[in-house]
Amino acid sequence: MQNIKVIAFDADDTLWVNEPYFQEIEKKFCEMLEDFLPHHSVAKELFKVEMDNLGLYGYGAKAFVLSMVETVLKVSNNTAPIGLIEKVIQYGKELINKEIELLGDVEEVLGKLQPKYRLVVATKGDLLDQERKLMKSGLEKYFHHIEIMSDKQVKDYQKLIKHLDIQPDEFMMIGNSLKSDVLPVLELGGVGVHVPYHTTWAHEVVDVKIENPNFYQISRLGEILNYFGD
Amino acid sequence: MQNIKVIAFDADDTLWVNEPYFQEIEKKFCEMLEDFLPHHSVAKELFKVEMDNLGLYGYGAKAFVLSMVETVLKVSNNTAPIGLIEKVIQYGKELINKEIELLGDVEEVLGKLQPKYRLVVATKGDLLDQERKLMKSGLEKYFHHIEIMSDKQVKDYQKLIKHLDIQPDEFMMIGNSLKSDVLPVLELGGVGVHVPYHTTWAHEVVDVKIENPNFYQISRLGEILNYFGD
Repeated sequence: MQNIKVIAFDADDTLWVNEPYFQEIEKKFCEMLEDFLPHHSVAKELFKVEMDNLGLYGYGAKAFVLSMVETVLKVSNNTAPIGLIEKVIQYGKELINKEIELLGDVEEVLGKLQPKYRLVVATKGDLLDQERKLMKSGLEKYFHHIEIMSDKQVKDYQKLIKHLDIQPDEFMMIGNSLKSDVLPVLELGGVGVHVPYHTTWAHEVVDVKIENPNFYQISRLGEILNYFGD
Repeated sequence: MQNIKVIAFDADDTLWVNEPYFQEIEKKFCEMLEDFLPHHSVAKELFKVEMDNLGLYGYGAKAFVLSMVETVLKVSNNTAPIGLIEKVIQYGKELINKEIELLGDVEEVLGKLQPKYRLVVATKGDLLDQERKLMKSGLEKYFHHIEIMSDKQVKDYQKLIKHLDIQPDEFMMIGNSLKSDVLPVLELGGVGVHVPYHTTWAHEVVDVKIENPNFYQISRLGEILNYFGD
């Protein structure tokens, strides 16, 4: 812990609310298609399309909208009225334009750590979306820059750490996803901090027990300050 | 020139072919909608939709596909058969999966500059797309990392230069767009190198005469080596 030079924060559902907004749109989307399939079957089809497209489209709102469009075609076997596509486009714009709601302790934690560490945002998703959210959030002043990662696997963190010109044990990652924010960082010898959020995208769910001296489990973000002394 | 520490290369139409692939898809798209509007009017509508969406979607293939979907709805006044939307999704996947065709001199230039400078790719568009292209291109080994920029205006280059921890006069940008790769860099006091490509997206076209000692106009990439002595 005393080696840490860079602290990276996941953005969505770590700094601000995100997953509930996606779920809200997904709910409307599934309701819209109930003439073709029951709600939960539409959700299942959408998730399948999203997973099939992940390698091609990556993460973020635009990928989500494109997968919704494709799901309309698939679920209706190309018989849906084209007006439903218009609705999907509107849902997407609504999602992208959502207001930013900061999560608890965020400003306090950033304010206390910023004078002593180089803070970065390390997130999947679209750069433009994340830059816009960061600007709207008022948190821009705390961060050295945003790192957009096409994925958050070990190789992606290797690239990030190389890019930051630091050693793995000088790197701490804080986020709500064990799978994306913690496990790959621990594997590289960095410090991983898990701060859970009440809801998690199915793709991010893992069931593991972590025993690693570089792992910190906290229940809310502010608790991390306890580990920095002072 | 002797201060240069980092040389940034634009990617699309500087390192590899890009715009012709977009134009090829756009041509098919306009033909597809000829029942509703003449080819050139569809192109005009598409460009308008793209510009309207630029602030929301940013650059890159996914933004382009979403704007094509919206153009189908608009041009047909929501009367197009939904099968056309399926075609658009296919066009998008075709575009994303295009093979990489390197432009002339690229490998030679990167090979000569890489031992002496920190080379980065600085590009708009989707990170995942650009990472995939870089991997397919075989050029990954020459670059320290990829910088995805949500736009290429003065403020974006300011952010980039801060992020690279260098001064503006230590930064050189090489690219095919005067508007995006050269003018904002010159404004900041960096070195801007223009290497034109035979076709340019309408959004990138500017008509200016540049008189600036930090500006280099070359006709093919290899010429840049003349300015580095040996």
